Amino acid sequence: MEVCQVLHMNGGRGEKSYAQNSLVQRKVISMTKPIAEEAITNLYRNTFPASLAIADLGCSSGPNTLFAVSELVKAVDEVRRKLGHQSPEYQVLLNDLPGNDFNAIFKSIAGFQEDMRKQMGDGFGPCFFTGVPGSFYGRLFQRKSLNFVYSSYSLMWLSRVPEGLEDNKGNIYMAGTSPPSVLKAYYRQFQTDFSLFLKCRSEELVAGGRMVLTILGRKSEDPASKECCYIWELLAVALNEMVVEGIIEEEKFDSFNIPQYTPSPLEVESEVEKEGSFTIDLLDVSQVNWDAYDEEVHQSEAFKDGGYNVAKCMRAVAEPLLVSHFGEAIIDEVFSRYGEIVANRMSEEKTEFVNVTVSMTRKG
Amino acid sequence: MEVCQVLHMNGGRGEKSYAQNSLVQRKVISMTKPIAEEAITNLYRNTFPASLAIADLGCSSGPNTLFAVSELVKAVDEVRRKLGHQSPEYQVLLNDLPGNDFNAIFKSIAGFQEDMRKQMGDGFGPCFFTGVPGSFYGRLFQRKSLNFVYSSYSLMWLSRVPEGLEDNKGNIYMAGTSPPSVLKAYYRQFQTDFSLFLKCRSEELVAGGRMVLTILGRKSEDPASKECCYIWELLAVALNEMVVEGIIEEEKFDSFNIPQYTPSPLEVESEVEKEGSFTIDLLDVSQVNWDAYDEEVHQSEAFKDGGYNVAKCMRAVAEPLLVSHFGEAIIDEVFSRYGEIVANRMSEEKTEFVNVTVSMTRKG
Repeated sequence: MEVCQVLHMNGGRGEKSYAQNSLVQRKVISMTKPIAEEAITNLYRNTFPASLAIADLGCSSGPNTLFAVSELVKAVDEVRRKLGHQSPEYQVLLNDLPGNDFNAIFKSIAGFQEDMRKQMGDGFGPCFFTGVPGSFYGRLFQRKSLNFVYSSYSLMWLSRVPEGLEDNKGNIYMAGTSPPSVLKAYYRQFQTDFSLFLKCRSEELVAGGRMVLTILGRKSEDPASKECCYIWELLAVALNEMVVEGIIEEEKFDSFNIPQYTPSPLEVESEVEKEGSFTIDLLDVSQVNWDAYDEEVHQSEAFKDGGYNVAKCMRAVAEPLLVSHFGEAIIDEVFSRYGEIVANRMSEEKTEFVNVTVSMTRKG
Repeated sequence: MEVCQVLHMNGGRGEKSYAQNSLVQRKVISMTKPIAEEAITNLYRNTFPASLAIADLGCSSGPNTLFAVSELVKAVDEVRRKLGHQSPEYQVLLNDLPGNDFNAIFKSIAGFQEDMRKQMGDGFGPCFFTGVPGSFYGRLFQRKSLNFVYSSYSLMWLSRVPEGLEDNKGNIYMAGTSPPSVLKAYYRQFQTDFSLFLKCRSEELVAGGRMVLTILGRKSEDPASKECCYIWELLAVALNEMVVEGIIEEEKFDSFNIPQYTPSPLEVESEVEKEGSFTIDLLDVSQVNWDAYDEEVHQSEAFKDGGYNVAKCMRAVAEPLLVSHFGEAIIDEVFSRYGEIVANRMSEEKTEFVNVTVSMTRKG
């Protein structure tokens, strides 16, 4: 098994693809599973729909793609069987950007459906799968056609790099040394994107429909807090070294910024309330180690090098962004330095990603 | 532009892909367009749906994929504008086997949507696209979720090679020399497949929903009629020559059969009536030249060799079937011989494909 796998997801660079640490994401899906399951089984018990349309936004392409949705379907089927009801028809709508590898997903569906039938018996389903290409910062589905929306580790990607980051010199994301104008520009872009996201989903969900989102975020109200920005600051350290050594042009470096925003629970709550179509049922914060292998038992020595693991995973995420800005040539050097820097810091302190999960209901 | 393009479509060999002559198919789409447009605008005028879900079954991947559906959407939008109504939300569901290149389709959608908006103005849409992988000889969509089903040049492919073709020696499809048991076996497989198709679609279409299918077929009631079987008979001639010369094993040749059935209008009608969910609004027969370039003006000399054109197009259709049965090695030789044989016959007689188009309404 690969430590990381390059996955395409809904992201902040239009048609370009992002990559995702599949082990970290898998852990996050598992950790937040009780919240999503509670929401979908609650929805099922309250409405007993004849058909249940579940959308996964930013589904990516890889081992996690069908994992999250299958857990949701299993949870509903368990309740259904206990109550002696007939199975609803499940409709699973898998969304990601048009550059995502939908062919790979589609080829895996028949085997997946077979497994589901074996696990859940004859009374289950049918369960239909469709692929829906496009940015979730826009309408994707017909009006009132969804019962449940799910998204994990995708909504921290902005629709674009915010405007007004000219004064963020020396940084590539929000950082302790970023001026207030930069923090504001990032926050404004998050507000614009997230409120548009909410508005689109409010049109697509039926009244009483549920939505569970997990976003890479932070606990603190300081947007430049170390808990969300440190991992990018260390990448900036590597790039800075290379500027000093003349390998990267300073101007190139200064104009590079990551199109991401890692919100606090309060910021998420605030946008949901402002948009007005949803009531929040639950707001949760959880943490997961930078190095997801840290908690696993592995025999290979390779897995023990946490710095290497994290650098490899972050490379999968950041490489497309770096390549399009700096070109291919510097990439190996950047991540070799980054690996060392990360390993250093990890040996000195506990390093974790913070996840904000919000569960909400469509009013009406 | 290529004379032929290898396209994947819903076909009779499970997960394997079929190929399609895109120019012939394009002509057929254009020829049968008035029937499909009449059906969908009629549907629109009778119901004025807030959202209109259109499925294209066996959409393939290539220049024709979005062409057929876009003509349908344009026709509705024209009526809508004339009547001064607000645009419905269009939902386009593109279906083909999981091996189809959905990635290529998805990458072309944004440009296509942009063109549609330009052509049809601000009042148009939105128009959402989804990909639905799977065989249309099974359920693909949620119950009562479709308003319109369209399929062109896909339903002549059976779900499998029929059982009971042991006595079809010397032929690769139904032919004048095929015994009655072979013709019966082919017909039974068509009945089984087509009635299952109708049953599945009847569950998915809303009451009053429309379906327009164009199938490669025949006019005659003789299933071994030259009009539908001759093109395969000529391929059998080429293969037979190679058996005589010892290039192909006789046993191999005798066990090869094409999983296709080219029905008559009456056979189509009979299955629709037996299944019972649909009323037939129109049943039409049309013809198109084997060599679709025949009617076109081309400057290149290459296009003037009709035998070459047809052999190249049939190669795109038949190559996957031949390769999986005979292996790669014989393919060039087969189609070189086939091209000569076809050219010979084309110079002596008018050679055409027959298309059966049926337009029907879901009872309810």
